[in-house]
Amino acid sequence: MTTLPTPDIAAAKAALAHLDIEENENAIKRASRDFFWYSPVLKTRMDHLLADFVVRPKSEAEVIEVLKTCYAYDVPVTTRGAGTGNYGQAMPMRGGCVMHLVHMNKVISCAPGRVIVEPGCVLKDLDAHCIGACGYESRMMPSTWATATVGGFVAGGSGGVGSVTWGQLRDLGNIIRLRVVTMEEEPRILEFRGEELARVSHGYGTNGIITELELPLAPAYDWVHCFITTKDFGAAMACAEDLANEDGILLKLASVFEAPTAKAYFKRMEAYVEEDDHMVGLMVAPHAMDALITYLGRRDDLSLIYRSDDNDWPRSPGVAFEYGWNHTTLRALKVNPEITYLQVRYGFPDHKELIEKIRAAFGDELIQHLEAIRMNGKVAFAGLTMVKFTTEERLDEIIRIHEEAGALIFNPHRYTLEEGGRQHSDERQLSFKKEADPKGLLNPGKMISFETPDFDFKDIYAYPGMTPLPTEDA
Amino acid sequence: MTTLPTPDIAAAKAALAHLDIEENENAIKRASRDFFWYSPVLKTRMDHLLADFVVRPKSEAEVIEVLKTCYAYDVPVTTRGAGTGNYGQAMPMRGGCVMHLVHMNKVISCAPGRVIVEPGCVLKDLDAHCIGACGYESRMMPSTWATATVGGFVAGGSGGVGSVTWGQLRDLGNIIRLRVVTMEEEPRILEFRGEELARVSHGYGTNGIITELELPLAPAYDWVHCFITTKDFGAAMACAEDLANEDGILLKLASVFEAPTAKAYFKRMEAYVEEDDHMVGLMVAPHAMDALITYLGRRDDLSLIYRSDDNDWPRSPGVAFEYGWNHTTLRALKVNPEITYLQVRYGFPDHKELIEKIRAAFGDELIQHLEAIRMNGKVAFAGLTMVKFTTEERLDEIIRIHEEAGALIFNPHRYTLEEGGRQHSDERQLSFKKEADPKGLLNPGKMISFETPDFDFKDIYAYPGMTPLPTEDA
Repeated sequence: MTTLPTPDIAAAKAALAHLDIEENENAIKRASRDFFWYSPVLKTRMDHLLADFVVRPKSEAEVIEVLKTCYAYDVPVTTRGAGTGNYGQAMPMRGGCVMHLVHMNKVISCAPGRVIVEPGCVLKDLDAHCIGACGYESRMMPSTWATATVGGFVAGGSGGVGSVTWGQLRDLGNIIRLRVVTMEEEPRILEFRGEELARVSHGYGTNGIITELELPLAPAYDWVHCFITTKDFGAAMACAEDLANEDGILLKLASVFEAPTAKAYFKRMEAYVEEDDHMVGLMVAPHAMDALITYLGRRDDLSLIYRSDDNDWPRSPGVAFEYGWNHTTLRALKVNPEITYLQVRYGFPDHKELIEKIRAAFGDELIQHLEAIRMNGKVAFAGLTMVKFTTEERLDEIIRIHEEAGALIFNPHRYTLEEGGRQHSDERQLSFKKEADPKGLLNPGKMISFETPDFDFKDIYAYPGMTPLPTEDA
Repeated sequence: MTTLPTPDIAAAKAALAHLDIEENENAIKRASRDFFWYSPVLKTRMDHLLADFVVRPKSEAEVIEVLKTCYAYDVPVTTRGAGTGNYGQAMPMRGGCVMHLVHMNKVISCAPGRVIVEPGCVLKDLDAHCIGACGYESRMMPSTWATATVGGFVAGGSGGVGSVTWGQLRDLGNIIRLRVVTMEEEPRILEFRGEELARVSHGYGTNGIITELELPLAPAYDWVHCFITTKDFGAAMACAEDLANEDGILLKLASVFEAPTAKAYFKRMEAYVEEDDHMVGLMVAPHAMDALITYLGRRDDLSLIYRSDDNDWPRSPGVAFEYGWNHTTLRALKVNPEITYLQVRYGFPDHKELIEKIRAAFGDELIQHLEAIRMNGKVAFAGLTMVKFTTEERLDEIIRIHEEAGALIFNPHRYTLEEGGRQHSDERQLSFKKEADPKGLLNPGKMISFETPDFDFKDIYAYPGMTPLPTEDA
């Protein structure tokens, strides 16, 4: 492990005193947390983490000042947006400075098909701006769109709402340009395009701080939010997949919720569904609604129970995407705090068979939640499976059974890039970290290959530099 | 065969004399022809066909008047737009009236994502209107976009430029609504949506006349036209397919031209390519160009020789789509009048293997021309194979070899719906024809199931009612 020198917190704080620094203890605590608590595994390990101070730069020049100052005083810097990530990406592993980009929220320019924006812009605000300016919106977004920032999404996310059409953030063309500041004695400003984007996108801010993003946009529609029920789980999967494969039907979301998700966890659905109803949630462009109805007319095993443009529900269930992606688990957690989840990829062409096989193997210990996504041009499923948590050992066993069956797991019970990803180091990210963060101060503890190059991935990685857990006496 | 009564041409013409009727003999001859001459088979059979008169209605009311009058006087009515179809769709098989919809060219309304338009609107004009009004354009178009009409495309086409993203016209969601007039004693006006669209779309005007279309639109971009060369035909196929499978890269066209197409038939390419260069033609959204360049950077077997937004060619080659789809054969025909073509579907997932197999079987009798298209959500290829024509028998044999290998042929050397399609009758079209055209006057000779229900498809269908070929003495 790279040895980190002792930080001089007081000196760094004093040097940055003219910036917007948070002094309130509760606010510092809030800014030191993301949605790591989705995972009982991360909850036991990260709940105590706390920044020494929080700074909110207003410009790229202030970001540079923060990085340069913290470099000089050996202070770790963990950068965050809204903190809606749930792999512990924004948790300050050894305290130090949390740099909150909330003030850097300007849309710099937008045109049909592309936008240039600062990282702290909330996706909801970004879309409102772009829709107003040119009738376009983000291609992809997390279900936390209403609060999440665009920089946080690109630095910590992989896809989401919109991936049913546009694929993943890492796919060619889904990020155009990133402007990045390094953490060196004299921070540099770099512009990354093309192959270089992989150095810092989905890098958790471990090897550079994104200060500007250029992203492609998608045409904005008044999406119609639809919910469909069926007694047959296979029919629910087929419905989402079929519609995603209809080239003339524009979707932004196609989620599948195994029974009893809708009845048990979706309060505003409760009166309209039964315990054994599987559900499909959709976002459909208004001019594709006729085609959706035509498709449903061919399927007597599917019932459209709600469409946002035409219904008699006295209380709106809200937008479909706030039932999908990570919101599904969030809603379930509110009802049953014992629930946690997995992130799974079921690759084309055997995705449905694989899901049925896994479903048969587990009974009601798992509740299937799928999102139709495009991977290399083929529709298949991402799984955000809900798990009735018992022990860490059983959770690891569940994961192993998935992997042995042929499913790819992105383990959300790990806080490192490697363990949450494909379990091997990314040479592009690592080599850039060595160059851009020579002291290893950027979001320390998140890149195993930098900290502990010989790690064997047999057990969960425990970052040796992490602020120790408080003792029971403390 | 349904017996057609003898038409009273003079009476019909007199009754319609207050409409815009063409009197000029050469103009009547021009209005009696489409692009049937792409096929040497159709050329020998249809070259003599001639309307008795041509009428150009200005409104739906006038369309109704034409149909009602022609019904009363037993006059066949063949409806046409620009006549750019090449299955002989718009050829008046037994003379009578050619109804030319050139005056019905209004865009009635357009909004982001959809347009309502009259059938005679030229696609180029439609797109200009929609781009100006709301930044949108047609999802799909033939390569004859500059002259073809939207009604002719829907009544006679199946897809084209744009199908790489949007699939085929027949796919759910690619047509929203058609307004149709029947040919009865009292013509009715019908509105078709959903499943009913299949009754009249791609019906060659045999069972109703489309007087209004509601179609979805796609966002309009300043498409960048690109040409890529390679010495390896497999690399050319892979390039088109890979890019079409990149979910973050927006394409409108991905054409593959086997050598020596570019050198031999594309005059403006001649100086930039060699005899053994295979070529890929692309239309790429401007904000996806970085991603295209990134992709090409990974492939040293591909050379980008032209991009319309950045090049030093003294003379522009023009738009990429005027090299693709039916324009490829058109360009080849201008150089070598012996060339004709096939229309082939190579279905996912064995499309590339099938193409290589067929390519190996024929040597230079065929020149491969492929268009990447989406079929049920999967990228595969349509083939518009160029054929060095020798005899009808050999052409039929070439087709048979394709079919035996597993390729689907839409035979462009046949003038009927069935033979140009899937070789069986479409019950929806037939039942609607019986209802909407009880006298069998609408584009007679094009629907075998109506004329000759027991036809066995062993040989080319010869419509018994067709105006006889002139004798040699005549």
